[in-house]
Amino acid sequence: MKAAPVTLLIDNIGELVTNHDGDGLLGLRHDMAVLVDGERIAWVGPHAEAPAADRRIDADGAAVLPGFVDSHAHLVFAGDRAGEFAARMAGEPYTGGGIRTTVAATRAASDDDLRRRAGRLVAECLRQGTTTVEIKSGYGLSVAAEARSLRIARELTEETTFLGAHVVPAGDDPDEYVDLVRGPMLDACLAYAKWVDVFCERGAFDEDQSRAVLTAGAKHGLGLRVHANQLGVGPGVRLAVELGAASADHCTHLSGADVDALAGSATVATLLPGAEFSTRSPYPDARRLLDAGVTVALATDCNPGSSYTSSMPFCVALAVREMRMTPAEAVRAATLGGARALRRDDIGLVRPGARADLVVLDAPSHLHLAYRPGVPLIETVVHNGVPR
Amino acid sequence: MKAAPVTLLIDNIGELVTNHDGDGLLGLRHDMAVLVDGERIAWVGPHAEAPAADRRIDADGAAVLPGFVDSHAHLVFAGDRAGEFAARMAGEPYTGGGIRTTVAATRAASDDDLRRRAGRLVAECLRQGTTTVEIKSGYGLSVAAEARSLRIARELTEETTFLGAHVVPAGDDPDEYVDLVRGPMLDACLAYAKWVDVFCERGAFDEDQSRAVLTAGAKHGLGLRVHANQLGVGPGVRLAVELGAASADHCTHLSGADVDALAGSATVATLLPGAEFSTRSPYPDARRLLDAGVTVALATDCNPGSSYTSSMPFCVALAVREMRMTPAEAVRAATLGGARALRRDDIGLVRPGARADLVVLDAPSHLHLAYRPGVPLIETVVHNGVPR
Ligand SMILES: [Zn+2]
Ligand SMILES: [Zn+2]
Repeated sequence: MKAAPVTLLIDNIGELVTNHDGDGLLGLRHDMAVLVDGERIAWVGPHAEAPAADRRIDADGAAVLPGFVDSHAHLVFAGDRAGEFAARMAGEPYTGGGIRTTVAATRAASDDDLRRRAGRLVAECLRQGTTTVEIKSGYGLSVAAEARSLRIARELTEETTFLGAHVVPAGDDPDEYVDLVRGPMLDACLAYAKWVDVFCERGAFDEDQSRAVLTAGAKHGLGLRVHANQLGVGPGVRLAVELGAASADHCTHLSGADVDALAGSATVATLLPGAEFSTRSPYPDARRLLDAGVTVALATDCNPGSSYTSSMPFCVALAVREMRMTPAEAVRAATLGGARALRRDDIGLVRPGARADLVVLDAPSHLHLAYRPGVPLIETVVHNGVPR
Repeated sequence: MKAAPVTLLIDNIGELVTNHDGDGLLGLRHDMAVLVDGERIAWVGPHAEAPAADRRIDADGAAVLPGFVDSHAHLVFAGDRAGEFAARMAGEPYTGGGIRTTVAATRAASDDDLRRRAGRLVAECLRQGTTTVEIKSGYGLSVAAEARSLRIARELTEETTFLGAHVVPAGDDPDEYVDLVRGPMLDACLAYAKWVDVFCERGAFDEDQSRAVLTAGAKHGLGLRVHANQLGVGPGVRLAVELGAASADHCTHLSGADVDALAGSATVATLLPGAEFSTRSPYPDARRLLDAGVTVALATDCNPGSSYTSSMPFCVALAVREMRMTPAEAVRAATLGGARALRRDDIGLVRPGARADLVVLDAPSHLHLAYRPGVPLIETVVHNGVPR
């Protein structure tokens, strides 16, 4: 028997980021309250007019935000590449080659081990205010191992992405592998995947190969995402726009034509500054994208090779320090931007009817996420209406 | 009545950073246990030989470190400068002028308000693994207000620093203010201060003024610390070495003579990368200092103007990414380095007789503090023998 829905009132909110109805880019409102009914937001209004509820959280003047939407993460894997990280920090460049290390460890792991590891990471995300996380496969690279990764991912999130085209397995012929990915591997993964993604980059998959994988996924009803233009300029971003992908991710090296293509499209540019931090690479030019009118999302790219952070607040602080986004732009990109990158209109904002995914900060303003870098400022997380 | 000392065993430690007796720079040992008796470490040895104890923490294979020693923080203040931070991130340079904003708010605050705010910050530090934090005055700048700040600081830490010479109050004559600082203000603060510090920088205090304050403090038995060479080259570092200061802090702009002076001295170079992060300034050249044989400490500089982070793990990650310290060098600087900057031999290391200040990570290795930036990896903190 399902429990009867209970109401929850969060009141005494000093600053409410609505991303919907209020002042400035974040739709800020002050001295507010939010009523949650079951898994949805039922009412948003002045603190002084707050209705009664079964339960109450006193925000004590703090800021309340929509939960972070991390639209790009690789959480199903085994193994640890801390040694590779330390070597890279001592001067070795990031080439993406280490992915195969994780593939070997992931294939060797039991279902329970993978499930436990991914579950721990999702819990870690949630403690840091991430209430929606996308999870990609891509460390299996065989029909069975990719399907298994997605089956486990689907236990943890509805935003699952088939990334069989992450890298060509050692020793495989690239075109034969692409045929496997868009054929039997896709078939085996369809039941668990909402999205299809491809690593379109020199050393991974070229434009034709990427197009073949993406169009096969689209034909079966999957939404499209592309790892694009991370390590150099290339066809990824324009391919994403051409095929109507929801998001082009990384966008570190863009031509003018790439920026124009994004600006004229519904494709979100998802920036992943944790990857640049952890590979000591130049950051994407967020200002250029924002000034061109491109919708920008921030995500963690959480993975054991190039960006092992699960912290959206850390990405917000990096976006402000390193990519010259304003704190408001960064917070919007980490919430509503992520929702747009997942083509969701029920998350990333605070309005009646939206999912009751909310974060109470241990701070009076969203500014503190950048102003107080590295400090765990997440006081309470409400996920699907349930406080944690 | 004081409770009888109890013993506490932390066992199943996968990697123990001892900074004392083991492999490499961190004195690493594996499969270890640590016995705590009251407030001190009583025994360190192999997990398999661990003695019985009243209480037990199972580290479950995780890494255990000495608690972080944050040897530079400004935690007694009122007010908030988030707006100034956002303006600076939008392009306004950091000049230090905003200190006066905090002085006005601090003077206007009640004792209880200051005590509550500072206490919250110390608790925040502790949750992030900082078991020793130095606290400076410097937002009072009158005899009564500086003494009050130090009295409150002394309730929270034994490492208190008189920083009346933080900035000249608006409208005051600089030399008259220096006479106040080294005379009546110093007298009023002596009872609560262990250290004296001066902001030796263009726009703050020059070499002669700094020397006058430091020598007056030394004459009364205070140890010396210097804010030196943050915003440009200057006399601060060499003055610190000349006077035998425990630490020269910031060290962002150093001449060859400054590096040579530090290398031939017992003065620690305390690097504060949170300040460079939050003012978007170039980072100090840690490699040059380490390669010259200088003892380096990492600290937060936690303050509401130029570095409002309290996170030592964040500073470790920045040190690796931005200052090319190895993870081991950064972890050592954040523990033993801070202890040396405070001239303490009972903290920052794990050996029998040392203070029982220990951190259990939610990670198998110290490497993860840099490998997983922004992620709250502090699982359990033992402070003075008490787990929190
Ligand atoms: Zn990725
Ligand atoms: Zn300072």
